[in-house]
Amino acid sequence: MAVYTEISDVELIDYLKQYDIGELHSLKGIAEGVENSNYLLSTDAGMHILTLYEKRVNVDDLPFFLGLMEHLAKNGLECPQPVALNSGEQLSTLAGRPSAIISYLDGNSVKRPSNTHCRQLGEALAQMHLAGEGFAIKRPNALSVDNWRPLYEMSGKGSNTVADGLSTLIENELTYLEAHWPKGLPSGVIHADLFPDNVFFLKDKLSGIIDFYFACNDMFAYDIAICINAWCFEADNAFNVTKAQGMLNGYNSVRQMNDAELEALPVLCRGSALRFLLTRLYDWLNVPEGAMVTPKNPAEYIAKLKFHQSVNKASEYGVEAA
Amino acid sequence: MAVYTEISDVELIDYLKQYDIGELHSLKGIAEGVENSNYLLSTDAGMHILTLYEKRVNVDDLPFFLGLMEHLAKNGLECPQPVALNSGEQLSTLAGRPSAIISYLDGNSVKRPSNTHCRQLGEALAQMHLAGEGFAIKRPNALSVDNWRPLYEMSGKGSNTVADGLSTLIENELTYLEAHWPKGLPSGVIHADLFPDNVFFLKDKLSGIIDFYFACNDMFAYDIAICINAWCFEADNAFNVTKAQGMLNGYNSVRQMNDAELEALPVLCRGSALRFLLTRLYDWLNVPEGAMVTPKNPAEYIAKLKFHQSVNKASEYGVEAA
Repeated sequence: MAVYTEISDVELIDYLKQYDIGELHSLKGIAEGVENSNYLLSTDAGMHILTLYEKRVNVDDLPFFLGLMEHLAKNGLECPQPVALNSGEQLSTLAGRPSAIISYLDGNSVKRPSNTHCRQLGEALAQMHLAGEGFAIKRPNALSVDNWRPLYEMSGKGSNTVADGLSTLIENELTYLEAHWPKGLPSGVIHADLFPDNVFFLKDKLSGIIDFYFACNDMFAYDIAICINAWCFEADNAFNVTKAQGMLNGYNSVRQMNDAELEALPVLCRGSALRFLLTRLYDWLNVPEGAMVTPKNPAEYIAKLKFHQSVNKASEYGVEAA
Repeated sequence: MAVYTEISDVELIDYLKQYDIGELHSLKGIAEGVENSNYLLSTDAGMHILTLYEKRVNVDDLPFFLGLMEHLAKNGLECPQPVALNSGEQLSTLAGRPSAIISYLDGNSVKRPSNTHCRQLGEALAQMHLAGEGFAIKRPNALSVDNWRPLYEMSGKGSNTVADGLSTLIENELTYLEAHWPKGLPSGVIHADLFPDNVFFLKDKLSGIIDFYFACNDMFAYDIAICINAWCFEADNAFNVTKAQGMLNGYNSVRQMNDAELEALPVLCRGSALRFLLTRLYDWLNVPEGAMVTPKNPAEYIAKLKFHQSVNKASEYGVEAA
């Protein structure tokens, strides 16, 4: 659940004068996005999302995120895009915080993705990878293999309180991944957080992708690995190969993975499982006083990591070399 | 901030089949209403509010609240009204809770009401009092003079930790109000919680009244007294007689208060100030473990109560006998 910054009506009415979207109809704080405050903003020009960037977002990254959304939308991806101010800029300030108005995307996320949702997700992910081509600003992935050991060390000895033997599991996995992490695979802009709550469907048809606030430059196949973890396991953490096959077939129908990417898929899945295990572990052990967010249990990603450790080749994910 | 109940997409799609409002577009939890979970529901038929009634609401009262909204809307008041199920009923069940779909009311609440907002509020309050006539179900006010002493006793000795001498102030006031509480004034359905966040304006014109979950049968002038407290004081708790005059003139232009009501206004304002002081005091002293709601500081209503204790007659609120 998000934190809400109080916005005064006088301040808001003044703020809207910077945009060509008419007068205020209504503003409602919505329970979406853990990092920022999001509001549904209705004006003469219809529905938009107003976002206030709270302290966990680095202001220097905002031109990347907002510029990317605009670039992707221009290149045909269904995603929200920033509304320009009269000055032509995308970023403003409201209630003392950096802020932007973003177009409203109709649709709803699914909590239990079906095979057809997974196939459409694969297609949209590949479309995003292609649509990102030519975007000028670069942003390295701050949560990739080199960052995992320092991140783990921030959780330290607490990890064994979450599960017996967890620190050994993580330390061995770090050593393995640092030695085997692939290089030179096709790269570009990746979403890096494409969980089901960031994908909207309208009458079972994918209507768009949201929340680009983890997007960065990295290997495309790492983004695929994140989606395998996020979309292709059941609630009991059992891997669903039919969903993975659908997702990968969908992806390949738009952008064909090459042999090196397929070969690297198991290690990328291990890495992606470890990345979410480590951030969830840290959040689990460091719940701030008075937090309004319940941290996600890291155990889910222990199970997923162990599954991928047992995988020998990409065909076990339901996909064959091209 | 509201608590949100998790609704599964499968459950929601099934739920909507009970209504004639087409298919789901989107559902977003909104940060409105402390007692219930509220969602903005978009379907083929447009925007609605979906409410899940959480445990603080008595299910037996729901036919009163929902029936009242329908009755008021039919009688010309701008307010949300329940969407009937295909069965003709207004109440259903979702995620294990009583639930209703309510029409969406455009507009935004104001945080700092101006004189013109106060005048319009007075008119709308009188319209509501007239529109409530003929509503068949009755609901006594569970937070009136007879309930205040037991409510105070639940806070008990803790009150002096909030402000020096607060328990003496409250006990003396209870004794005074129990002896002087008016009887026989014009009565009917009152809103009983018409704070600025429950009144919407669209381009500075009042567009409607929401949140009837404290509505009950009581004296109209008590509702006016609640609004004087909620609308006619500045942030530093100074009384603004211009706003009160505007509000009362607005009210009288629609429904003229009689002499007995005017005469009782100071004591009704004292009672209304005590009522909100007591509930805030209780909430302040009893914040539940892990609460996501910051209780409102009772000090504001100590100041308001003291102001009204100094008032001798209604003319000090800016209104004269008819």
